[in-house]
Amino acid sequence: MRRVRIALLGCGTVGGGLVRLIEKSRSDLAARHGVEFTLARVLVRDVARRREGVEPGCLTNRPDEAIPPDTDVVVELLGGIEPARALLRRAIERGLPVVTANKALLAQHGPELFSLADAKGVALGFEGSVGGGIPIVRALRGGLAGNHVQSVSGVLNGTCNLVLTRMEREGVSFAAALRSAQEAGFAEADPSLDIEGWDAAQKLVVLSALAFGSWSPLSRVRVRGIRDVTPDRLVQARARGRVLRSVAVAERRASGLELSVEPRELPGDHPLAAVSMEENAVLVRGDTVGELLFRGRGAGAGPTATAVLGDLCDAAGTGPGRPPWPAASPSPERMAPPKNVLAL
Amino acid sequence: MRRVRIALLGCGTVGGGLVRLIEKSRSDLAARHGVEFTLARVLVRDVARRREGVEPGCLTNRPDEAIPPDTDVVVELLGGIEPARALLRRAIERGLPVVTANKALLAQHGPELFSLADAKGVALGFEGSVGGGIPIVRALRGGLAGNHVQSVSGVLNGTCNLVLTRMEREGVSFAAALRSAQEAGFAEADPSLDIEGWDAAQKLVVLSALAFGSWSPLSRVRVRGIRDVTPDRLVQARARGRVLRSVAVAERRASGLELSVEPRELPGDHPLAAVSMEENAVLVRGDTVGELLFRGRGAGAGPTATAVLGDLCDAAGTGPGRPPWPAASPSPERMAPPKNVLAL
Repeated sequence: MRRVRIALLGCGTVGGGLVRLIEKSRSDLAARHGVEFTLARVLVRDVARRREGVEPGCLTNRPDEAIPPDTDVVVELLGGIEPARALLRRAIERGLPVVTANKALLAQHGPELFSLADAKGVALGFEGSVGGGIPIVRALRGGLAGNHVQSVSGVLNGTCNLVLTRMEREGVSFAAALRSAQEAGFAEADPSLDIEGWDAAQKLVVLSALAFGSWSPLSRVRVRGIRDVTPDRLVQARARGRVLRSVAVAERRASGLELSVEPRELPGDHPLAAVSMEENAVLVRGDTVGELLFRGRGAGAGPTATAVLGDLCDAAGTGPGRPPWPAASPSPERMAPPKNVLAL
Repeated sequence: MRRVRIALLGCGTVGGGLVRLIEKSRSDLAARHGVEFTLARVLVRDVARRREGVEPGCLTNRPDEAIPPDTDVVVELLGGIEPARALLRRAIERGLPVVTANKALLAQHGPELFSLADAKGVALGFEGSVGGGIPIVRALRGGLAGNHVQSVSGVLNGTCNLVLTRMEREGVSFAAALRSAQEAGFAEADPSLDIEGWDAAQKLVVLSALAFGSWSPLSRVRVRGIRDVTPDRLVQARARGRVLRSVAVAERRASGLELSVEPRELPGDHPLAAVSMEENAVLVRGDTVGELLFRGRGAGAGPTATAVLGDLCDAAGTGPGRPPWPAASPSPERMAPPKNVLAL
């Protein structure tokens, strides 16, 4: 059994979800991964607030004390650029594996952070930065070996999709749909990053780097938000059998890589047209594998914490390497195979 | 650069696809994974037949000569039980990592092979055994850390789905739809393994082991094929807004794990209802991550070869560990972040 001490930077929605998920799955993590995670330190803004599953003595609000000497792995869930960037750099320079769900940071400083991690030979996990619980980073990193990706596209912002779905289904205005999304806790108090398309653009930059092997700057993404979309336009699209979604696309063109986030009308049977409410989806086209669709909950404590915990298991070196079932599980009843094909 | 010598067992549709994919992506594999794959030996039935990309001197039809002493990794694409099982056992006992796409073998002898691989500490990759190019094994092994899976279900047999889609769209009989699938090269000359549901049942046993952590014998799967489905039934279902699919389900019930493969009527907006023609899809419900859908081409040379090559990269120890983009890629143009959130 390996004991792995986490320095947790940020304990908001996702951080709190991670603490609960680790607590809930303690025995599973021991049995399947041979690992026990404990919290070495938790960086928060308000140390006076009690947090379920966190010893008050672990809490600090001082970034310079956030990564104690006995830390084994650093999990960054602060969001934004600083102090997230400085703390991740410090961790990597100390040779510590890091896990982050910070798409804003990666979209802007990805090359710098990955170069540093590569130079130091440490793992940098970022499954939680795109698509919440959808294991799209894992799929693009390892699942498309040998493929040239032609395009990667998706519905990457749950707030936009929730607002558009509500407008379409209930015929309400953009403002009313946004207000009800905020009341339901799905949209931020300041929703401009979502609504204007920048959140999706940041995620697209990360997906594009994975799919095409090089970083595009955020400024290369053509970004249009959904503020101008009217219920009429949605209803008219539906009458023509089409569906309006905020779609992020990165694709190879003769002229180079083209990246955009904008409202698009999709045919009703398009794989992304069925993505409704706060769901996310990613569609990948590879030259050999064909078209792959990944759909699931793109945000929230549970889905994103699942992604972060998977990275944590990898970073702790316990990974998915062992068969995830008990090695001693009983042999199946023997039965004659229905057919014994020898396709030499 | 690591040079990795493959003993390839079987060079049919998928094996041939793998040889072409490795050839096509030689420079990518070198740049991204630092690996060069070469063929040490290729086991085939007919050594006289020429195969593109394979030196005739590599070919053998003798199983006892199939794994030469300088082999680094064994790829088994024979299908069926023997000699696949004996050869994989021999490879694992010699400490060689192995990759297989053989669902029949895993469904029947999975516990034995995984126990042996665990005891010898070698990797056993099997992404190609379920869902073709859909990276579902990768997702279930690493992407659902901490989750209790409640159910895993899917459309796992492309031939059945192609036949049902044709019957529904063209109003033709089961026999006619099957014949045209065979003529198009999608169904085997003897399609009973597909049509009777056993191919999907084998895949379900593998998925269920991954999702629930223990092996269920094939005999525990309730299996019903699609031979009795009439065009009338499909048309009537469609008139009620429902779609008939051959659906494989493994789910936790109070009474234990329940496994089935059978024709089911799905609501028109069910994620599996949109899976048409030879496509496959897998739907996973986890207690923390929620519902995840994976859709793509479930068979064929390209998709399955992609899955096998991903496993090969992992088995060669080159894996997805390194960032898949050039470490020296240029820094992005700096631009002010749209918003700097510090969500402590």
